[in-house]
Amino acid sequence: MSERVFNFSPGPAVLPEEVLEQARQDIWNIGGTGIGILEHSHRGKIFDEVISEAESDCRELAHLPPDYRVLFLHGGASTQFFMLPAGFLPEGGTADYVNTGSWSKKAIKEAKLYGHVHIAGSSEDANFTYIPTAEEISYSEAAAYVHFTSNNTIFGTQFASAPTPPEGVWLACDASSDIFSRPIDWTHHGLVYAGAQKNLGPAGVTLVIIREDLLSRSTVRELATMLRYRQHADNDSRYNTPNVFGVYIMGRTLKWMLANGGLGTLRERNAAKAKIIYDVLDSSSLFKGTARADSRSQMNLTFRARSEELESMFIAEAEKQGLVGLKGHRSVGGMRASLYNAFPVKGCEALAQLMRDFEARYG
Amino acid sequence: MSERVFNFSPGPAVLPEEVLEQARQDIWNIGGTGIGILEHSHRGKIFDEVISEAESDCRELAHLPPDYRVLFLHGGASTQFFMLPAGFLPEGGTADYVNTGSWSKKAIKEAKLYGHVHIAGSSEDANFTYIPTAEEISYSEAAAYVHFTSNNTIFGTQFASAPTPPEGVWLACDASSDIFSRPIDWTHHGLVYAGAQKNLGPAGVTLVIIREDLLSRSTVRELATMLRYRQHADNDSRYNTPNVFGVYIMGRTLKWMLANGGLGTLRERNAAKAKIIYDVLDSSSLFKGTARADSRSQMNLTFRARSEELESMFIAEAEKQGLVGLKGHRSVGGMRASLYNAFPVKGCEALAQLMRDFEARYG
Repeated sequence: MSERVFNFSPGPAVLPEEVLEQARQDIWNIGGTGIGILEHSHRGKIFDEVISEAESDCRELAHLPPDYRVLFLHGGASTQFFMLPAGFLPEGGTADYVNTGSWSKKAIKEAKLYGHVHIAGSSEDANFTYIPTAEEISYSEAAAYVHFTSNNTIFGTQFASAPTPPEGVWLACDASSDIFSRPIDWTHHGLVYAGAQKNLGPAGVTLVIIREDLLSRSTVRELATMLRYRQHADNDSRYNTPNVFGVYIMGRTLKWMLANGGLGTLRERNAAKAKIIYDVLDSSSLFKGTARADSRSQMNLTFRARSEELESMFIAEAEKQGLVGLKGHRSVGGMRASLYNAFPVKGCEALAQLMRDFEARYG
Repeated sequence: MSERVFNFSPGPAVLPEEVLEQARQDIWNIGGTGIGILEHSHRGKIFDEVISEAESDCRELAHLPPDYRVLFLHGGASTQFFMLPAGFLPEGGTADYVNTGSWSKKAIKEAKLYGHVHIAGSSEDANFTYIPTAEEISYSEAAAYVHFTSNNTIFGTQFASAPTPPEGVWLACDASSDIFSRPIDWTHHGLVYAGAQKNLGPAGVTLVIIREDLLSRSTVRELATMLRYRQHADNDSRYNTPNVFGVYIMGRTLKWMLANGGLGTLRERNAAKAKIIYDVLDSSSLFKGTARADSRSQMNLTFRARSEELESMFIAEAEKQGLVGLKGHRSVGGMRASLYNAFPVKGCEALAQLMRDFEARYG
């Protein structure tokens, strides 16, 4: 078996090797049942355990208050983009959105199908290189909710902390690319959603954490059964067949996070990992970070070199050294190092070393 | 590693062991890339190959005419229950549905949110123990489409062949539990959908095969982006991040089907497998099949014993012998042997032997 490389992919992304090793066993035969995890009924004992442990581990890891429900849904964050306003933005009503990049814009586009959208803040004026400050955000009167994208994979920015919504208004957060990379203050959060494929597991399963009181409200319009959060909550995420393997891997990854110290420890570790690269950027004359310093992401570090030619050379050289997936998103170019929870410190050190070597030669 | 058992589960269900063995390697490191299949970008070279081969293998296997598109979507068949009428049943319009059991009823319920439903045929009068004949089906004038469930997992019935819709009307088929168990006559089919977790792969990915002309029609109502078939087709199933692992396993399973002779051979093999059990049922005084003989499923064989007590004893004894998952659906009781493509002939022989032994003792 050939060696594994350092995988800087923005998602689907690197997973903990312990989780993969376990999965390789369990695909063949889990828990001595003579049946692999892909082949077990979603209503059988094995999966009962998998999903209930995934839920309780999620609660423990996130320090989730008891009045929140944990759902494992289909459809990715892109389905949440419309399921959220379909469920909570009444016709004629207004929802507030903070626009911090491509994913925010997609969420906004879907919300407009259902009601009015007020852009409470935006960094589009500077190509999304920063996160609007509290002073730069102004809410509408009586918003149905306030939506924000906690981390922006493409532009390499991240909210240092959640925005504070007006009194009585709840936050909806697309946390796809930084969920469980650090503790979450649940105070204002009504609904947090995350496609699994960055910090949580494989693509194809979406974690939704929703406050109980939102489930018991009357719905703002008639909805197909699969689009009702309440339906999924009442059926413990098994109204239809869930992504069994996705929930399984997410569960194992949550256990790995707990075993590695939980969210406080992960925050410190992630900050230390990101600092290794940002320190190089800050002392470089060849490389330059693209995000404003106060808005930098700890998950996706975006940077440019002096020329596109040097960028191509750098990416090619990195690949040769087993540092893979460093090309920036096609819409912005440059480089991007994605350092999710499972990404090892050693990979950051290797990248930093390569950047320094490269600068010594071409700087 | 302990032995694998005979897994009669109705789904998620047994997968080909060759596919599982390959997956165990590829989860760690696929194609010598140093990255596992769960961790590869859905826009990278490895997944480009996976998804394009899955599509071309699907075309080859199904003898798919060139004017159909192959999509790999999220959300299970339950999402298709509403995505289909949302896309094709205009407000005030009528769609025809053949009601052959629980899954048909769920599809009907969702369609009613969007327009009128005409029940073109139903076997509800006899607890869904049969498939309505052509004479028992009567269509409405100018239906938007005719929907049927080709195989009914719970009631153990299966359409011997697709119903013939009125001139110019297309069929929509929920083929979740018998897709690719036999050849498909594409003549009238406009849209075929199937949750993967029976014949195709793991839960969490849905195969949708749709005729080109349906994609190019103007939509009957404004829809969220994720609910537009056209959007997924235009983006080769990668408008958002697909279930990478689900598509991968489906692709490997399609290759396994091709290597095993294709759909004609699988039909013969599946018929032979089912015959092993039906022959026992037909000569038994203790066991009795629940479906009418002309409507019997080759995938899910439902049967009862003389008493519920004997049924419990039989299921327990089977389990001890490594024949697992034979309990009937909670809504109907009794026994159910699910014999999907990957289920081995030997398992059918073992079950038949046990049934005969059991009858010798308790018959």
